Amino acid sequence: MSNPSSTSSSFVLPIRIYYEDTDAAGIVYHANYIKFAERCRTEWLRSLGYDHGSILKEFGIYFVIKHLTIDYKAPALLDNYLSVHTHLETMGHTSLTIHQDIFRDETLIADLKVVIVTVNLEGQPQRIPPQLRQIFSPQTL
Amino acid sequence: MSNPSSTSSSFVLPIRIYYEDTDAAGIVYHANYIKFAERCRTEWLRSLGYDHGSILKEFGIYFVIKHLTIDYKAPALLDNYLSVHTHLETMGHTSLTIHQDIFRDETLIADLKVVIVTVNLEGQPQRIPPQLRQIFSPQTL
Amino acid sequence: MSNPSSTSSSFVLPIRIYYEDTDAAGIVYHANYIKFAERCRTEWLRSLGYDHGSILKEFGIYFVIKHLTIDYKAPALLDNYLSVHTHLETMGHTSLTIHQDIFRDETLIADLKVVIVTVNLEGQPQRIPPQLRQIFSPQTL
Amino acid sequence: MSNPSSTSSSFVLPIRIYYEDTDAAGIVYHANYIKFAERCRTEWLRSLGYDHGSILKEFGIYFVIKHLTIDYKAPALLDNYLSVHTHLETMGHTSLTIHQDIFRDETLIADLKVVIVTVNLEGQPQRIPPQLRQIFSPQTL
Repeated sequence: MSNPSSTSSSFVLPIRIYYEDTDAAGIVYHANYIKFAERCRTEWLRSLGYDHGSILKEFGIYFVIKHLTIDYKAPALLDNYLSVHTHLETMGHTSLTIHQDIFRDETLIADLKVVIVTVNLEGQPQRIPPQLRQIFSPQTL
Repeated sequence: MSNPSSTSSSFVLPIRIYYEDTDAAGIVYHANYIKFAERCRTEWLRSLGYDHGSILKEFGIYFVIKHLTIDYKAPALLDNYLSVHTHLETMGHTSLTIHQDIFRDETLIADLKVVIVTVNLEGQPQRIPPQLRQIFSPQTL
Repeated sequence: MSNPSSTSSSFVLPIRIYYEDTDAAGIVYHANYIKFAERCRTEWLRSLGYDHGSILKEFGIYFVIKHLTIDYKAPALLDNYLSVHTHLETMGHTSLTIHQDIFRDETLIADLKVVIVTVNLEGQPQRIPPQLRQIFSPQTL
Repeated sequence: MSNPSSTSSSFVLPIRIYYEDTDAAGIVYHANYIKFAERCRTEWLRSLGYDHGSILKEFGIYFVIKHLTIDYKAPALLDNYLSVHTHLETMGHTSLTIHQDIFRDETLIADLKVVIVTVNLEGQPQRIPPQLRQIFSPQTL
């Protein structure tokens, strides 16, 4: 599991909490952490030189989320400044298993496991192209 | 302006407030009323026999929002049961001006004016087809 | 697992898909199913005679989500009409494990397992009050 | 009206567009620009040394949105990098009128006028405290 002191193998995105992210219980609405996680995966991809459009254009594939698990450890509040840590756990022929932790300073707020499948335009699972395999691996494993 | 006692000329959609709709101030987040208004316009369209897909398919046009004004009159709260009232105010060659009121019982929560333009697939303004003009008019003016 | 033919033990809520629920991939955004699931749990609670406010007032407790797992089986689209099925799987001293399935007709779109803990105003786990235990059980187990 | 070449009198916040911000029309969902505008007003406040919590604590007031007008000029797309420009237009005894422009490079995407009222804990309009008047003025008018 990644943590703030081992960021060498994680991509980290800071997230500020606005009113839109909170609910009437005074805390961040539970589904919104899943948006924060997706923002971080997108910026991790961008840091590797790609975005969703370029991957579709260059390889004819896109990413589909198949499975997501989230554990809620502590509530986050309005105006909190969080950091999302993204770490590629395993890479299969057509899938990526990604681990993500959301922290406020040293406090773990939530952690997620996300399984993503690469599919072609017809929605059929498609092998991850070698160029992407290479790019994903060294920086993250 | 429409109100609960003159629903003959309005289309009405009930909306229940869930945690997702509220914010840390304990009230409905201000941008979410704009979602409720769009849900009601969509159901009004459906009540007239159309949805966004069928209008695109049958007439090659879709609706684009150009202008929106909203006045916030009173806060709505978790578990409130609201009603959105939608009323076509004027119809131009390529535009619809729609008035919408959001009530909790007799209390006006917000009212909106929304200007929508009909465009073709290239995004150019397109005259509202006669069949749609006819359908919009009698029920709503 | 609940399914449309065994609704005797499930609470069912219909959900219409609006533009707000979709994303640029043309499908429902993955985090939004988690909102639909929460709407259904809230309506299930209401069908049992309670809402979040009355549970807090009467018992001094509220529900906190600790764990959520979701499997995405098929994409849902704009204007789709879904049904969320909610089924109480197990009840512990201070927790509820709830299974939820989201269907479009006979097609399973997603299924979720949600673990909820009852806590007091200080956020400490609190035993589920006998009145609530009794209400949850017969209708749902 | 502010524009990218006159940022001296505007506070500017960059916004990246993620899947969560878009809809099935392939563009940013119209209500989401209102969230971006609020993020920018919050960061403008923070740049002046305050946040919602400290203003409530120090002055016993908070901000309530009374009126909002938005004109949609051009669509924004997934992965776009926008900038929100916030500019205090006028300050009344108990209200602020704020102008906000959202740009993608030199293209105006949307512009908003937002009227905010300062209220006390009972929700009654309350004069803007002198310390806040002073802070708002020089940087922004």
